[in-house]
Amino acid sequence: MTTAVYDELARHWSRLHRFGHVYSIVSWDRAAMMPAKGNEARAQGLAEMDALLHSLRTEPRLAELIARAEQEPLDDAARANLREIRRSWTSSNALPARLVEERSLAASRCEHAWRSQRPAADWPGFLVNLREVVRLAREEAKLLADATGLAPYDALMDQYEPGMTSLEVERLFGDLQSWLPGLVREVRERQAGEPALALRGPFPKPAQRALSLDVMALLGFDFEAGRLDESTHPFSGGVPEDTRLTTRYREDDCIQSLMATIHETGHARYEQNLPRAWLGQPVARARSMGIHESQSLAFEMQLARGAGFVGRVAPLLGKHLGPQPAFEVANLQRLLTRVEPGLIRVDADELSYPAHVILRFGIERRLICGEIEPEDIPALWDEGMAALLGLDTRANLSDGCMQDVHWSAGLFGYFPCYTLGAMYAAQWFAAIRRGTPDLDQRIAAGDLAPVFDWLRDNIWLQASRWTTAELSTRASGEALNPVHFRRHLQTRYLGRATV
Amino acid sequence: MTTAVYDELARHWSRLHRFGHVYSIVSWDRAAMMPAKGNEARAQGLAEMDALLHSLRTEPRLAELIARAEQEPLDDAARANLREIRRSWTSSNALPARLVEERSLAASRCEHAWRSQRPAADWPGFLVNLREVVRLAREEAKLLADATGLAPYDALMDQYEPGMTSLEVERLFGDLQSWLPGLVREVRERQAGEPALALRGPFPKPAQRALSLDVMALLGFDFEAGRLDESTHPFSGGVPEDTRLTTRYREDDCIQSLMATIHETGHARYEQNLPRAWLGQPVARARSMGIHESQSLAFEMQLARGAGFVGRVAPLLGKHLGPQPAFEVANLQRLLTRVEPGLIRVDADELSYPAHVILRFGIERRLICGEIEPEDIPALWDEGMAALLGLDTRANLSDGCMQDVHWSAGLFGYFPCYTLGAMYAAQWFAAIRRGTPDLDQRIAAGDLAPVFDWLRDNIWLQASRWTTAELSTRASGEALNPVHFRRHLQTRYLGRATV
Repeated sequence: MTTAVYDELARHWSRLHRFGHVYSIVSWDRAAMMPAKGNEARAQGLAEMDALLHSLRTEPRLAELIARAEQEPLDDAARANLREIRRSWTSSNALPARLVEERSLAASRCEHAWRSQRPAADWPGFLVNLREVVRLAREEAKLLADATGLAPYDALMDQYEPGMTSLEVERLFGDLQSWLPGLVREVRERQAGEPALALRGPFPKPAQRALSLDVMALLGFDFEAGRLDESTHPFSGGVPEDTRLTTRYREDDCIQSLMATIHETGHARYEQNLPRAWLGQPVARARSMGIHESQSLAFEMQLARGAGFVGRVAPLLGKHLGPQPAFEVANLQRLLTRVEPGLIRVDADELSYPAHVILRFGIERRLICGEIEPEDIPALWDEGMAALLGLDTRANLSDGCMQDVHWSAGLFGYFPCYTLGAMYAAQWFAAIRRGTPDLDQRIAAGDLAPVFDWLRDNIWLQASRWTTAELSTRASGEALNPVHFRRHLQTRYLGRATV
Repeated sequence: MTTAVYDELARHWSRLHRFGHVYSIVSWDRAAMMPAKGNEARAQGLAEMDALLHSLRTEPRLAELIARAEQEPLDDAARANLREIRRSWTSSNALPARLVEERSLAASRCEHAWRSQRPAADWPGFLVNLREVVRLAREEAKLLADATGLAPYDALMDQYEPGMTSLEVERLFGDLQSWLPGLVREVRERQAGEPALALRGPFPKPAQRALSLDVMALLGFDFEAGRLDESTHPFSGGVPEDTRLTTRYREDDCIQSLMATIHETGHARYEQNLPRAWLGQPVARARSMGIHESQSLAFEMQLARGAGFVGRVAPLLGKHLGPQPAFEVANLQRLLTRVEPGLIRVDADELSYPAHVILRFGIERRLICGEIEPEDIPALWDEGMAALLGLDTRANLSDGCMQDVHWSAGLFGYFPCYTLGAMYAAQWFAAIRRGTPDLDQRIAAGDLAPVFDWLRDNIWLQASRWTTAELSTRASGEALNPVHFRRHLQTRYLGRATV
């Protein structure tokens, strides 16, 4: 027996990968480079590419080829690849080409208009586009649900986090809600007696950029295989061979751009270190968005807000932005671990971040089910922010439900990945610590190899070789276990773990 | 009778246009943004797009559709569009898909390697890739020649300058060679008695960039529909709705980046002002590369090196780079019209530029015919530069035959367009002057409308509505006539025209 049919499928997916390369670069350009008047033509170009990719993913011959390849004598990696090929095929075949194109155009338009509607707090204008995006997302969810047997919202989430269900998310988030508000209160009381000196700007943008580049180098980013640019909403895009990350600069706050850069560098190193041997095949892709966020949060939360790393970064702040008392190590670490619930998710501290995700998960799940309509969002937002974080968000739409790009871009089911990622990141660091008991001292001495080596071997090079639960078990001895997250937060913020 | 078949063709070409958008942006990115390690994947992505575009341009049904559409009752614009569709179809159908893909990959590889081989003067390394590019270009030339009845080199040139033949280029260049060397000598003797103060750098890159942006604004560039970036070799790319131009900065010479920016802004305004009503159809594209260069050179040579415009730019130089005696108007104009043959084509003055083109035209024509091989180029280059400009180029390959991107990218037949463009630009300005006798005073007063209005109505909005000869005749009363170029050079450099 040969693997001829499998090989043919692999060639087909390599071709998809090459078109995907073009698609990724043009998408990055849209967010990081494109001027306003290019949007309509760009939306049409991307929709045409979406239609092309969809037609290649749904070629009628593929159903039989996949079934035949499954009978071939494949090695384990090839079998894992075929599993991912079938997964991609199933979700693509659930959707008609017309829907794929409409969704692409609607998301492009909504997201592009959002860029100016958000600062203008133009909710009514935004709502017109959002309704169309939601209508198409519901249609997509229903079709995916029919094809996979999952609930509609779960079917969307499965695109980002295969195997995860909203029941499981509810269980995990329910656990969080049982102890996190109490922890937040306790930490805030404690921190009230430990004031931190505020940053004194302005911090010129070119200096912040130079600082970001230095820190990326410290974190092992390969500048011959990627770039740092700016966008409204920091993100990591591009392709594994050429990873494009963005940050954003505020002249009054150098921490924001720095932390965004570190976060995106975590994503970027995952992409830059995916296994080259399988490149172009689904098995060589990042496992899931939760695992992706576990990399960015391993960098941003676990590593970069820890005392050892802060000691390495503080001199770089002084070097690029000039010395000031706020940059002293102990003060800088206080700033980086200050718990202060605020309106903006991406600026949130480690302890209040999950509340932002819980709020969005609750709203988007009901939105996809049809329990609520887009016009109901602002009231639910105000209510949720009051209940979860005790904040009054009424009449502040720009920093409320209009703050994220996700819904405008049609990315429903993505938000839970952030908090799943935070939990996974804590679990990875617990595993790294078990293997390297003097981890904190090594990091403080500037030796980041124990972190990078573990992530490379256990996560980056594993790509999509295993299901997420298997990946987690092989890497850390167990599937996702939220106790590591709780233990990490207690240790960092209270100095002792009770669980 | 209906125009149903024509309409179907137009929809097909709109789809090609949307894929072309994606292709253009990714190509721009390759030259302006992409880090080194992205090249191999990018080359594969572009080759896949080339193959896709080729297959869409050569769908078997098109032959019959085009023939049937030609029988439909079309208006003049649609008929012109159909003429351009047939032209595109004929040249695409001449080439097998295999050649299109090989050519794309070979050009990507050769051009990318050239970026580091040029500074290293690695001719043997470059030659390995160039041989493959030339081999494929010859194959392409032969197939295009068979399909069009043109000679092989002419068939390549026809892709850039439809209707132009090498016989006609030889006639025009022969005319130039009969009077230009004498004019260069006369001007150099005259300028020897008119010394100009040299620029005193360094000129920081951010200040040069700010200057470029100011001058682009003066020239009417629409920043909501385009960008300015940097690349090794300045170029204008992107799409009409989003024009991407690049320049390059040298810290010791602020004139180079400024003139490159002005040149590319000429290209960009043509693209930004192509007729929107036909956008996406071949008739809405720029007429030819010669006409395109006539726009960049109308800006760079006709307008920007004239006394009136220099008076407007001089204060901007002082504003961004600090005042210095060299920036005084009379001195600046001397610098901008200094005739001094040098090694680099893109830095050449207006009078020695044609010699660079004549040299390249002679070499590439013989290369495509098979009269010479790539390894013969350096000796022919040395010989030609000595004969045409009296310069010794031996052992200087980086600033010799390795200086241009064109051959590495497989663009054979393009070079003549630069000098045809210079001739057309002189012809356009002669026509503008006839309609606006006080043109120089208006420009000196900062009123550029007579130039922009004429170019917009006569060139930009005409796009590919007419053949090049018709376009020229409708715009200026005659087909290309080199007397205008000679008259312009005599007037500017000797103060009087004898022809």
